Amino acid sequence: MKGPERTYRMELQYDGAGLHGWAKQERLATVEGSLEAAFKIALGHSPSLRVAGRTDAGVHARRQVVSLLLPQGVDRRGLLRSLNALTPAGIRVSRLTPAPAGFDARKDAVSRTYRYFVCPESVASPFWAPYSWQVRGPLNLNAMREAAGLVEGRHDFAAFTPTKTEHVFFHKTVIRCGWTRGRTGPLQAGTWTMEIEADAFLRHMVRILVGAMVEIGQGVRSIEDLERALSGASREDMGLTAPAHGLFLWDIRYPARGGRSAG
Amino acid sequence: MKGPERTYRMELQYDGAGLHGWAKQERLATVEGSLEAAFKIALGHSPSLRVAGRTDAGVHARRQVVSLLLPQGVDRRGLLRSLNALTPAGIRVSRLTPAPAGFDARKDAVSRTYRYFVCPESVASPFWAPYSWQVRGPLNLNAMREAAGLVEGRHDFAAFTPTKTEHVFFHKTVIRCGWTRGRTGPLQAGTWTMEIEADAFLRHMVRILVGAMVEIGQGVRSIEDLERALSGASREDMGLTAPAHGLFLWDIRYPARGGRSAG
Repeated sequence: MKGPERTYRMELQYDGAGLHGWAKQERLATVEGSLEAAFKIALGHSPSLRVAGRTDAGVHARRQVVSLLLPQGVDRRGLLRSLNALTPAGIRVSRLTPAPAGFDARKDAVSRTYRYFVCPESVASPFWAPYSWQVRGPLNLNAMREAAGLVEGRHDFAAFTPTKTEHVFFHKTVIRCGWTRGRTGPLQAGTWTMEIEADAFLRHMVRILVGAMVEIGQGVRSIEDLERALSGASREDMGLTAPAHGLFLWDIRYPARGGRSAG
Repeated sequence: MKGPERTYRMELQYDGAGLHGWAKQERLATVEGSLEAAFKIALGHSPSLRVAGRTDAGVHARRQVVSLLLPQGVDRRGLLRSLNALTPAGIRVSRLTPAPAGFDARKDAVSRTYRYFVCPESVASPFWAPYSWQVRGPLNLNAMREAAGLVEGRHDFAAFTPTKTEHVFFHKTVIRCGWTRGRTGPLQAGTWTMEIEADAFLRHMVRILVGAMVEIGQGVRSIEDLERALSGASREDMGLTAPAHGLFLWDIRYPARGGRSAG
């Protein structure tokens, strides 16, 4: 019989390489599955985990947020150490803090931000290759920025997901979408970074958007193509899906009071 | 029979993980061995490679310089592409340019710069873990900086290498040595970086220096200990060797005229 419990908020980072995404799958290494197995050893049972952003296989998380119930008075520092010792090296739980009762990492999130890194083949670095998509240049950054501008706002993103079910609501609001160019660190030369923030995302949405924008930058797809697709088209109207390893779940926003204040 | 040849300068980067260092060894993946095998396929023979800094197993290179002789009129761009296609993904040849006759990447180098990244366990990131040494804090940065200051200048570094042979000259001149603290990129929080520039280095010298300085930062070794060791002691007087994966060959300097002007 479990004793009294309270709500906690867990923050983590993970390197998506070698992980089959967030969601638990039998016989595959996933973030959720690894965490649940670690909780079972540390606590004797695993709490149910509510996650802010369900990432796909190979996608990284610079910041992921999870809500969960834990026994009142649990040794937080000891549990954090145990979770880090018991999960694969690519997963790191960075914080575990009490949250207001009822805090829900998924429902309470106001927005999710993703970043996608593109690197021209000519300046590729072996240190950055696992985290960026190496593409053949030249890329027209102005055209890619114009395309990103079109993506901002409320659109029917049905053309940007392989999901077909009628029960999905394809309208999402993109709060910000833009490209910047520059070094992201001393070991990474000349990276094109796309940052996109939206209330929610459909499956593969960021990667299909990046694929379309890179094709526009390469001059093999027109801006008008993207414009048409944004007013509700089908998946066949868009082209390639950018590879998972260039994509990072970058941040999750919560209201200033409530979810966020618990962090 | 080989035709006329001329001197070239090659620049490369490599991720040391999975590589047994620069120097060719039978049945082990090395940078030199991989490059020679690629040259043999691309050109039918491999030129002899003169390297600026011979790195150990697991050590990375942000910038490595090699001098070599190639057939006059060789297709440089084609050769560069072939070398990158034929070597492991962790090795990247970034430039191949004509150099003045007689340019010698090793002898002409004025100095080598290495960087070593240390990351406190409490802020470790899965993206930075392969490139930094995670240590238990707290670290006293002031003490580490004082220690780095002592290392600058000309010293007998016999205590900082496992090399014992009498034919080695243990006096080296450290031009700069210092610690800085800060983010090295958006995915790396709170890293301690040591940068050291010297005319030349002994085997393991940087890693034994870092080991001693981190012990000083942790308060388990005194500054006086290091001071004594710097005036010619034996290896036993120093402690641990920092792991290879935190070390980068960062840069090589050549005189403004001559070697460098070819780059």
